[in-house]
Amino acid sequence: MTRGAHTVTVVGGRGAVGTMLAEWAAADGDGDGDAVIVVDLPGRVAGDSTGPSGAGIDGAGIDGAGIDGAGIDTVASGTVPGDVTAPEAALVSVLARTDVLILAVPESVAVACLPIVEALLPAGALVVDTLSVKSRYAAALDEVGFGHRAVGVNPMFAPSLSPDGRAVAVVAYDGRPVPADLREPWTRRGARVVSVSADEHDRLTATTQALTHATVLAFGRALGHLDVSVDDLLSLAAPPHLVTLALLSRVASGTPEVYREIQSANPYAEQARAALAAGVREVGKAARAGDSAFADLLDRARDPLRHRTEELRATCTALFADPALFPEPTDATPEGQPCPRT
Amino acid sequence: MTRGAHTVTVVGGRGAVGTMLAEWAAADGDGDGDAVIVVDLPGRVAGDSTGPSGAGIDGAGIDGAGIDGAGIDTVASGTVPGDVTAPEAALVSVLARTDVLILAVPESVAVACLPIVEALLPAGALVVDTLSVKSRYAAALDEVGFGHRAVGVNPMFAPSLSPDGRAVAVVAYDGRPVPADLREPWTRRGARVVSVSADEHDRLTATTQALTHATVLAFGRALGHLDVSVDDLLSLAAPPHLVTLALLSRVASGTPEVYREIQSANPYAEQARAALAAGVREVGKAARAGDSAFADLLDRARDPLRHRTEELRATCTALFADPALFPEPTDATPEGQPCPRT
Repeated sequence: MTRGAHTVTVVGGRGAVGTMLAEWAAADGDGDGDAVIVVDLPGRVAGDSTGPSGAGIDGAGIDGAGIDGAGIDTVASGTVPGDVTAPEAALVSVLARTDVLILAVPESVAVACLPIVEALLPAGALVVDTLSVKSRYAAALDEVGFGHRAVGVNPMFAPSLSPDGRAVAVVAYDGRPVPADLREPWTRRGARVVSVSADEHDRLTATTQALTHATVLAFGRALGHLDVSVDDLLSLAAPPHLVTLALLSRVASGTPEVYREIQSANPYAEQARAALAAGVREVGKAARAGDSAFADLLDRARDPLRHRTEELRATCTALFADPALFPEPTDATPEGQPCPRT
Repeated sequence: MTRGAHTVTVVGGRGAVGTMLAEWAAADGDGDGDAVIVVDLPGRVAGDSTGPSGAGIDGAGIDGAGIDGAGIDTVASGTVPGDVTAPEAALVSVLARTDVLILAVPESVAVACLPIVEALLPAGALVVDTLSVKSRYAAALDEVGFGHRAVGVNPMFAPSLSPDGRAVAVVAYDGRPVPADLREPWTRRGARVVSVSADEHDRLTATTQALTHATVLAFGRALGHLDVSVDDLLSLAAPPHLVTLALLSRVASGTPEVYREIQSANPYAEQARAALAAGVREVGKAARAGDSAFADLLDRARDPLRHRTEELRATCTALFADPALFPEPTDATPEGQPCPRT
């Protein structure tokens, strides 16, 4: 993540975000002694690409050869099997020469490893986490009296998408400005760096992520309760339904651990789900009450969008014109024929 | 809606759907004695374009001149102010020479006018409704022993969108095949005609429309409860959140009467909202239970998509790459600066 002859170590480097950041570190290095070390659990660095990331790192600019304890100081980059919460000799050696440690791991692992990396990292090291939720990790940093600089990043896009035009949240836990070297890998790829505190981060992502995922997943479970045929739905779907089905296909295909952490680790997520439940009740109440109550409901539902409403409507109009929303007719719904399964 | 020297009368012809169908009827006529008569309430035919439709009909192929009782038989097309549930002389005269009566009106008006149009229409007339909900109207047709042929249409797209590639539901209340002349205006514009029974229509739209709208509006109300700044949300929004915000801007800007009818007139809509409420509870329960329960939740939320899952994921990937989803940075969220309002 920084320029110069540095060693960047990516723990959880076989996961989707870890893979992306390791590739970026390798691509951004100046080649003059830089090293990128990928650390992951033994089952994940042995060529296993069936984990949550699905994306292998081999061939993407980083040497995929394993490094054992004996060879660790003789090659610049490589992969090291190990558990950062209980490092063996090879990993201890790697940590002792790491300038930037990227923790692309679940919250439980990130919190558990803090006393260990605190003791093993050299002076001046930077620790970068990629957690989806920041406030509990921030509290853990305080509790252990973490002495190294710690900065969190949270890219607001799946690693399978281009960063160009997307946002990345950056949290400097000590409140000091985010180092330019840490912003640069994002900005050079077109991403917008948005600096927030850990609490701000979690308050915002409780809405942008926890509420959004809960909404889409609840919609999916509702489909299941209603026992409808997806062929019939797609045959008659208006654009809003098509888009919501498409969102469901994506959100419900997410990595369960990551998506659960967003719902369970964020101190504001339960409030977001409660707000959604209240919203569902309000829709039913307004529907039963009458046209005037329902008009009021629409106004109140739109109100949070404020001065961005027209911009978002334009976005929606553009999405509804996207050719991806025009599915090919299937045999299940030939033109002018009855739906077979309703 | 049919070829030949016909009179097509569009009641509610100043509304969005009525306007579209009146324009199509005028465009599709062969000019040999065809007439398109637009009927709407007096306040809506006198050049008032501030109603729900917003789109005036003038200049779109139909003579915008009003027709009074004396001149009704001397011009081919025009507008007639009137209430189809209590027609005065001019409207009675129009109905008596109408071959295709399009009822682009709310359910209450469509149901109330049935005995009147039953008595006034000539033999062989066809009555086409555009209701969002079909089963209660179907029951009303039975109750009055409606003697004319009745067919319902429900375009699954806003009149502001192109029909090309979109679906239109068609309900032949007598169970006979849908007349080719009624399918043709849709198919010639690229729409897919999907024939369903009234009950099938309502069962499906309770999901495609009522559930979808309820989901999006509940999300909007949740935003309100969470008291977040839309600028902050947009600065950090991942694509799923951006898309959901865009859907909200559109659904919550809908015509209240139409959107409420979808929620309140459909006998299956309350069940859909109850299923959504159950879904919200399940998300919270799984989040509290653990990773394995949450993985199971994702599986179950995705299950209704069945063999269309991959196709929908491809749709989602394409939508997330749509340039419309890359908002310009605003002054509120300069790069690398703190969000000002969190």
